[in-house]
Amino acid sequence: MKILVINPNTTVSMTEAIGEACVKAAQPTTEITAISPRRGPRSIEGYVEDYVAAVATLETIAENRGRYDAFVIACFGDPGLHAARELVEEPVIGIAEAAMHMSCLVAHKFSIVSVIHRIKPLLEDMVKTAGMTDRCASIRTTELAVLDIEKDYDKAQEMLIDESRRAMEEDGAEAICLGCAGMGPLDKAMQGALGIPVLDGCGCAVKMAEACFDYGIKTSKFKAFKAPEPKEYVDWPVFSGSFTQVRS
Amino acid sequence: MKILVINPNTTVSMTEAIGEACVKAAQPTTEITAISPRRGPRSIEGYVEDYVAAVATLETIAENRGRYDAFVIACFGDPGLHAARELVEEPVIGIAEAAMHMSCLVAHKFSIVSVIHRIKPLLEDMVKTAGMTDRCASIRTTELAVLDIEKDYDKAQEMLIDESRRAMEEDGAEAICLGCAGMGPLDKAMQGALGIPVLDGCGCAVKMAEACFDYGIKTSKFKAFKAPEPKEYVDWPVFSGSFTQVRS
Amino acid sequence: MKILVINPNTTVSMTEAIGEACVKAAQPTTEITAISPRRGPRSIEGYVEDYVAAVATLETIAENRGRYDAFVIACFGDPGLHAARELVEEPVIGIAEAAMHMSCLVAHKFSIVSVIHRIKPLLEDMVKTAGMTDRCASIRTTELAVLDIEKDYDKAQEMLIDESRRAMEEDGAEAICLGCAGMGPLDKAMQGALGIPVLDGCGCAVKMAEACFDYGIKTSKFKAFKAPEPKEYVDWPVFSGSFTQVRS
Amino acid sequence: MKILVINPNTTVSMTEAIGEACVKAAQPTTEITAISPRRGPRSIEGYVEDYVAAVATLETIAENRGRYDAFVIACFGDPGLHAARELVEEPVIGIAEAAMHMSCLVAHKFSIVSVIHRIKPLLEDMVKTAGMTDRCASIRTTELAVLDIEKDYDKAQEMLIDESRRAMEEDGAEAICLGCAGMGPLDKAMQGALGIPVLDGCGCAVKMAEACFDYGIKTSKFKAFKAPEPKEYVDWPVFSGSFTQVRS
Amino acid sequence: MKILVINPNTTVSMTEAIGEACVKAAQPTTEITAISPRRGPRSIEGYVEDYVAAVATLETIAENRGRYDAFVIACFGDPGLHAARELVEEPVIGIAEAAMHMSCLVAHKFSIVSVIHRIKPLLEDMVKTAGMTDRCASIRTTELAVLDIEKDYDKAQEMLIDESRRAMEEDGAEAICLGCAGMGPLDKAMQGALGIPVLDGCGCAVKMAEACFDYGIKTSKFKAFKAPEPKEYVDWPVFSGSFTQVRS
Amino acid sequence: MKILVINPNTTVSMTEAIGEACVKAAQPTTEITAISPRRGPRSIEGYVEDYVAAVATLETIAENRGRYDAFVIACFGDPGLHAARELVEEPVIGIAEAAMHMSCLVAHKFSIVSVIHRIKPLLEDMVKTAGMTDRCASIRTTELAVLDIEKDYDKAQEMLIDESRRAMEEDGAEAICLGCAGMGPLDKAMQGALGIPVLDGCGCAVKMAEACFDYGIKTSKFKAFKAPEPKEYVDWPVFSGSFTQVRS
Repeated sequence: MKILVINPNTTVSMTEAIGEACVKAAQPTTEITAISPRRGPRSIEGYVEDYVAAVATLETIAENRGRYDAFVIACFGDPGLHAARELVEEPVIGIAEAAMHMSCLVAHKFSIVSVIHRIKPLLEDMVKTAGMTDRCASIRTTELAVLDIEKDYDKAQEMLIDESRRAMEEDGAEAICLGCAGMGPLDKAMQGALGIPVLDGCGCAVKMAEACFDYGIKTSKFKAFKAPEPKEYVDWPVFSGSFTQVRS
Repeated sequence: MKILVINPNTTVSMTEAIGEACVKAAQPTTEITAISPRRGPRSIEGYVEDYVAAVATLETIAENRGRYDAFVIACFGDPGLHAARELVEEPVIGIAEAAMHMSCLVAHKFSIVSVIHRIKPLLEDMVKTAGMTDRCASIRTTELAVLDIEKDYDKAQEMLIDESRRAMEEDGAEAICLGCAGMGPLDKAMQGALGIPVLDGCGCAVKMAEACFDYGIKTSKFKAFKAPEPKEYVDWPVFSGSFTQVRS
Repeated sequence: MKILVINPNTTVSMTEAIGEACVKAAQPTTEITAISPRRGPRSIEGYVEDYVAAVATLETIAENRGRYDAFVIACFGDPGLHAARELVEEPVIGIAEAAMHMSCLVAHKFSIVSVIHRIKPLLEDMVKTAGMTDRCASIRTTELAVLDIEKDYDKAQEMLIDESRRAMEEDGAEAICLGCAGMGPLDKAMQGALGIPVLDGCGCAVKMAEACFDYGIKTSKFKAFKAPEPKEYVDWPVFSGSFTQVRS
Repeated sequence: MKILVINPNTTVSMTEAIGEACVKAAQPTTEITAISPRRGPRSIEGYVEDYVAAVATLETIAENRGRYDAFVIACFGDPGLHAARELVEEPVIGIAEAAMHMSCLVAHKFSIVSVIHRIKPLLEDMVKTAGMTDRCASIRTTELAVLDIEKDYDKAQEMLIDESRRAMEEDGAEAICLGCAGMGPLDKAMQGALGIPVLDGCGCAVKMAEACFDYGIKTSKFKAFKAPEPKEYVDWPVFSGSFTQVRS
Repeated sequence: MKILVINPNTTVSMTEAIGEACVKAAQPTTEITAISPRRGPRSIEGYVEDYVAAVATLETIAENRGRYDAFVIACFGDPGLHAARELVEEPVIGIAEAAMHMSCLVAHKFSIVSVIHRIKPLLEDMVKTAGMTDRCASIRTTELAVLDIEKDYDKAQEMLIDESRRAMEEDGAEAICLGCAGMGPLDKAMQGALGIPVLDGCGCAVKMAEACFDYGIKTSKFKAFKAPEPKEYVDWPVFSGSFTQVRS
Repeated sequence: MKILVINPNTTVSMTEAIGEACVKAAQPTTEITAISPRRGPRSIEGYVEDYVAAVATLETIAENRGRYDAFVIACFGDPGLHAARELVEEPVIGIAEAAMHMSCLVAHKFSIVSVIHRIKPLLEDMVKTAGMTDRCASIRTTELAVLDIEKDYDKAQEMLIDESRRAMEEDGAEAICLGCAGMGPLDKAMQGALGIPVLDGCGCAVKMAEACFDYGIKTSKFKAFKAPEPKEYVDWPVFSGSFTQVRS
């Protein structure tokens, strides 16, 4: 099968690292293509960036309709996930959702350990919308900016292990969901250090995409994720594949 | 005070009707400016349109920073509300939130009566994220498309009254929140017919914006709505006011 | 418009301070009358006092029916709020509800900072009944008795700022709802010190009453707040305006 | 042991029927005294009546402190329950709470079948405050006014059985909590007709009071139900036993 | 009445102590028989032991059908409670449920103080399934293994008092539910030391069983606890009373 | 990888059908072994059967420790799931959990369509314990007994399609989780007829087991699923592998 993994931010080195993490998790027969949108923020650490990157991601998906068997949105806020499901029939998997659902198979409660503190309310919204509140022991944040991670993986790992230990001891976390796509390369080392499952959403999303494809289910087009109504967009040409497009 | 009311869709006739509803609700000293984004969908009836219109709205707010005392997002999904609050210090009020909060002051439970059926999951997400589930008796949808409303107000009113009566009888609704900015002109006629409060979010949002302004509170910049981190955006010039901007 | 602000306790100096806070928040055309019931407890710091003051407040509202455009119940437990809504058609606004709803317009999560510790369970019940649990970061209490506040505003302010800081740091509070009507005079100074919105329910309730009046909604008389059934009261003459009254 | 059963309304014939139901449920060694407050509404079918009757009940309890081993508040809204627990150390049992907790011992889900429709929001608040939402299949109301019940028990029983059957078939009710103290005499006949447990809160409250007394627990005075702070009440002499009393 | 108290574990000394605690709480006319299953784990401190002991308890109940007026399952996880209710018509009371419901009559919030830390998730599941989450301030665990308690009651009491104090101060616990049947003998001493109600589920369950018996309710056989469908069991002879039994 | 699929009931023809469904869903390199416990009920349609089959399943897992890379519990109540996770380190996947988590990847809300009506409360408990309440549109039951399904697949399919249509129209179901392992063979035909994803938990569980294995996570042994404490079991030899075993 062919999976398009979209890193919603525009930092190419991070896209490459995400692609590698996905390839590592994929079955040999799964073909991974990892790309970034052509435009948008370098990283996603708040609501504005989440929205802009979501639309850039939707543009990317719209441009790639019909060419992949599944899509992965590789940012832990799952930006634009519901909208992306309207655009295509093939499964669209968000890495946060994937990590949370998979963690529920191996742990009673998971915690999310993520980047800078300001991201916490956004992640709280995401967990609530995903209906995962009851299984989430805590959302913990750190001093790490998204783009700091790949600059010094050792330091990032140390900070994430420290915070994960607090999640275990103080919140009862039994598994850790890594709260940023850029943390993916650290999953196995952290798992070894902590002794509990550590889940990189990128790898998890690939497994979930494969699972849906192999089992033979696609996004339900009844109700929430029905294809958009045909309608005119003013001056937003990228959606022109399926929508009437005019310039005002 | 000066309020910028943004109709996130690009249907100018609807923007005008929204502007009139806002003026009608405003204090004499409040100056209302109603605009649409320069680009985006003609109406918002699903997740893709909601996201694209949200970003168009954010662009509009970014372009108008520093020129208004408050902003109103005049679409009942409150598209981009949290992101907009990051962009400016002045209050940003969503019409859904405004109608829901105000209805809680005059009713034990409210129902939302909205447009075509596919919008229901999006509105459920919105109510849940807003933390209003406990006060919401039901979300009811109709056969009305957003742009049908202004084409035949009489027919729209009839359909909305029918659905509102069902919300009262079957769900215990004690107030009706009109689930689309385009329904605003019907509020008082429907209130007369139903005998319970009927709330147009546009009018409500103006009153809430005035209330915040008069009382002297602005958006909290601690945690959730902190201004975005300074960072580079690739090829998205409209955010250039406060962010470094590069072309890839 | 004319608003009757009822301080449910019988401490006249506090009623005067509440009246001043309300006048400060009101539009120039709004006429504020602040009164206390003729009987009842000097302050409200528990369930018994809350109930007795609620009935005293209901008596006061019953005596004043038809003479005001809105009523404000100026105690942070919102004593008798639902019952008051049965008694009159004009909006009745509780200061706790008002502060909580308004804080949701400028913050993702609010905390309540209130008086002596025993009040916490009562406030928890109130927040739950109001359906505000999801937006409430915490309820924090202090060593302050209600009547201590006005005796030493400086000390009160210092204690409240300390506790609010803990709410910000430990609970993620982005706005503070002052959990006692007597704290109203401190709102702006505390807002200045803390750097986040600080809401006095008295001022908020005035703004909400004005909003309802200006927008043209009154309490829904369908279901929860229907006028009481006509029935005999034994030996409780104050309700004689609308109910048959006998002495046993 | 000695239990004071207070019918919060002032209809003496109902008080007598409640007393008989309590005696029937009591152990031979339990002494039941059933009284009404000296003042207040003839029946309780809304928030105003609930509040006024609550205070009348508190007055009655205050006057009877030290003379009973437990108190029962015999109205299905549990008016003034939390406040009553502040006033005395002996257990105070509300009939709604008693019926709900006992029904959980014999059924997975219970429904409440009560009087006229307007009472439903008040009962919803009560169930939510009691933390019983998860076990409550539904709250169903009828055309029965409180004082109609004893006028024609046969008709009342027929109406309640019809509504209970709907609760079983449509809502999955496995036990029925009779939603008014006046329905107590019908419990066993209804149980026979429906084939599931039917619980009269009066009988249940007596059993719960006996259980607390025999097992040796009294109301916790830590936090929520701490005795009221000593303070002045203006012109409300009935609380004079433990509070300073002045006339304004 | 006759109550069969089943200690689901196979430690006879603990069964005897449970029997004594039940006799102490029972009415003089109540006849208590305390037994252990013939097989199963010596103590219950995790899910495997909970399940095995549950089935051993079901076997014990199946063997004793028709000989008792009520059954008590005397382990704080309430193992097999719902299944037991299918097997017999007489009330089956779990000690956790009993303690939680009774504590709600004397406290706004209770905490559970239990044995070794690994038990916490199991108790969280139990509280959630019982629908008691809203009234539960916290679940706290200690270093005590189940069988350590009776080896040194003084030390156990000291540890439980320490943890209960933390529950009071940090979580707002107003009553303590002892989270293990073996802690029963400590209830009154701990209540004396802590000054708040301390509930041993064994005693509470006896009181609840008596209450159901005296009031005249049995387990609802409509829906959840309907008798099992007649069906073949392979090689599990103990259920042969009411089910076809074959050996494979 | 090698997966042991345990059909907790003792109907061999059903075990075979489950095995076939699992093989159909599995990767070519996955080796499926499907077995039933040696003892226990022929089908599982209530709490007693669920508990007995759970323990029979635990015995089966205990006997097979160290010989498989993952275990699947193939009954839609997920009997003994948490206990099984204590017994082994390899992932243990319940088919209900698997279907629910996977459905969340392709639908906003799922419904469960299951066997005879009495199973509904058990499934409600299961959904609540799994923390999936927010995503579950409804649990619907039919007239189908478990063992009826394989006797007449056409009739079963017709009944399940009818009930699924009601779930779509009345409850907003966007995907259907088949609420019994025996329904697995109908998944694709039903999906074709309904036009929305239809999920057989057996197939889903295989995919989830493969996902966990490939990605490299095992059950967390921190807190909830820690291996049982070493302790004596009286007369239950099957657990002898890891526990001291005595005969009383």
